[in-house]
Amino acid sequence: MLSLKTGRRKFCEPLYLESGRILPEFELVYETYGSLNKDKSNIVVVCHALTGSHHVAGRYEGESKFGWWDGLVGSAKGVDTDKFFVICVSILGSCYGSTSALSIEPGTNKQYRLNFPVLTISDVVKAQIKLFNELGITHAHAVIGGSLGGMQALCFAIEFPEFAKHTIILASTYQTKPWAIAFNKIAIEAIKNDPAFKGGNYDEKTIQEQGLLGLAYGRMAGHISFLHPSSMDEKFGRTYAQTDGLYELFGRFSVDTYMEYNGYGFPKRFDPLSYLYITKMMNIFDCTRHYDTLEDALRPIRSHLTLISFSGDLLFPPKCMSEIYDVFCDMGRAKQCEYIEINSDYGHDAFLVEIDKFDMYIKRALEKK
Amino acid sequence: MLSLKTGRRKFCEPLYLESGRILPEFELVYETYGSLNKDKSNIVVVCHALTGSHHVAGRYEGESKFGWWDGLVGSAKGVDTDKFFVICVSILGSCYGSTSALSIEPGTNKQYRLNFPVLTISDVVKAQIKLFNELGITHAHAVIGGSLGGMQALCFAIEFPEFAKHTIILASTYQTKPWAIAFNKIAIEAIKNDPAFKGGNYDEKTIQEQGLLGLAYGRMAGHISFLHPSSMDEKFGRTYAQTDGLYELFGRFSVDTYMEYNGYGFPKRFDPLSYLYITKMMNIFDCTRHYDTLEDALRPIRSHLTLISFSGDLLFPPKCMSEIYDVFCDMGRAKQCEYIEINSDYGHDAFLVEIDKFDMYIKRALEKK
Repeated sequence: MLSLKTGRRKFCEPLYLESGRILPEFELVYETYGSLNKDKSNIVVVCHALTGSHHVAGRYEGESKFGWWDGLVGSAKGVDTDKFFVICVSILGSCYGSTSALSIEPGTNKQYRLNFPVLTISDVVKAQIKLFNELGITHAHAVIGGSLGGMQALCFAIEFPEFAKHTIILASTYQTKPWAIAFNKIAIEAIKNDPAFKGGNYDEKTIQEQGLLGLAYGRMAGHISFLHPSSMDEKFGRTYAQTDGLYELFGRFSVDTYMEYNGYGFPKRFDPLSYLYITKMMNIFDCTRHYDTLEDALRPIRSHLTLISFSGDLLFPPKCMSEIYDVFCDMGRAKQCEYIEINSDYGHDAFLVEIDKFDMYIKRALEKK
Repeated sequence: MLSLKTGRRKFCEPLYLESGRILPEFELVYETYGSLNKDKSNIVVVCHALTGSHHVAGRYEGESKFGWWDGLVGSAKGVDTDKFFVICVSILGSCYGSTSALSIEPGTNKQYRLNFPVLTISDVVKAQIKLFNELGITHAHAVIGGSLGGMQALCFAIEFPEFAKHTIILASTYQTKPWAIAFNKIAIEAIKNDPAFKGGNYDEKTIQEQGLLGLAYGRMAGHISFLHPSSMDEKFGRTYAQTDGLYELFGRFSVDTYMEYNGYGFPKRFDPLSYLYITKMMNIFDCTRHYDTLEDALRPIRSHLTLISFSGDLLFPPKCMSEIYDVFCDMGRAKQCEYIEINSDYGHDAFLVEIDKFDMYIKRALEKK
């Protein structure tokens, strides 16, 4: 069984944010797998996606559920924990233990709630770097992430070019496009206007037990965006719920029960303020913001880049990744970048579920000196 | 200016529905354009989509807004009202004048509300045929429709094979696929659970003035499904609302304001029960239901078919239309069917907005003897 360690660090120093605001202090929770070697040359940083957490792989005692990327990270797997020391940090703003809108605002004895500052991908990466420094980690063999985790990986490569030798990005983009922003909009509006949200001042316990409906609708929208019309055809077809009548107004197809299961289950394990803050972070992610062109933005990168996209991904389509590769070619630095498009009808979810289609590319990238 | 006539007919006889239920009486509202010729050989039936109405083209006195397919239907247009007598019926279940869940249930003095029976595409087509008979129309030169209107057109061709000489179907399908059903699910859940919906017993006036939030979220989802990632890139890019700060939690991109405009504006012009009944009708549409195969379902068709799909349509992808064409080829009846795929990044909306890309095909189809 995979051995894992969960850690927590508190920082009593301010984190200066991209917005100009400050987090006067912050806490980060993280998890590690495998053993750090003597010269600390075997570190792989994993960055999690929108609703992920530091719990990447393995199982907690007494739990039946494995970490969100257990198929990729473990003994003899794509990211081999017999060789690598893997670490994943729960990002600031999320609800699995690191500082978020539900944390106490220093000097007030009250939770931040909507006073919590907007965070960017740069901010959450900067905080991770601070943690790594505390842990004596100044250099990683690789940073790897999918979706929002891929945005973090790209940001590591641009803003801390000496940090990682390899950067592996899956199902992600250099800037969030309006298609993704539109899906997030349903969640934002439905959460904000839900009477039980109470302008962010909801009762935590009540909302965890009952589940905020607005967040459920937002998550349903998310679950559409993670798939592809073809993957839905294959997964559900037009199968109809056996308990329901075809001519009942609220009778359901299989895809309806899937939406209900994923939509209504989600608010019991995720916080609506975290969802708002992380979708905001995703929406405004644009690594070209402080540059004139994408080429200017990417020029500082020293890492070797492995870009893995999925043909059926509508949320972060292959083009968003191949454009990065094209820029490296234009700069005459094609050797520094590898672009792989995986043929998949699975949509965005492919980076989580079709691991056997790409784990060998990750293994190969990690083996590069 | 296009001359239009609006009519209304009440039927005091039962309509036997596919579900086994009965509408004891019903009313239909319709609109016509152009003049019926002597031998009644110039009739074109237009079928409207989910939220459309009988008001296809032209303007009502004092109104600035044109009908929903004004670009296609009119003098010297694709469907030329100088040549053709065009008629469009507001379907049963919709909220623009024909019998719906807000109608009085005979013998009760009360509105149907959730007692209204589920209707199918077959039902709404059958009702239209009854109206046409009343108006002395037993044969049409063509039936034409996009999206839900295309489902009706296909149903006319299958169930009333002698009715129309030509059937023109745009951006539609022979059966609704789970991708479309999933988008509808957001609306269904958000409407059903909206406290203001009151189990269907909402106060009509209040809800029209205030707009049901659940319907707004559902419509936002709809507006994503009508577009395509590429069309969104082109239409909105990452333009940000000038009034909003980038680091404001609820700051908005252009695509956000588009979603707000279309989402929140919609419930003021559309009824939530109608939305539930018509999405249900769409979800369960499957012209193969009473047949073993698609070929069996299509075999009765006597019309010439013109199938127009749009490459970027994710809601009813080209495949759903080309499969119909393939079946005609397999039956050795390729001459009876023409399939045209329009190159478009505009998504499903293309059948409403890129009229100049396909109106010539419709003109040509209508000119065929």
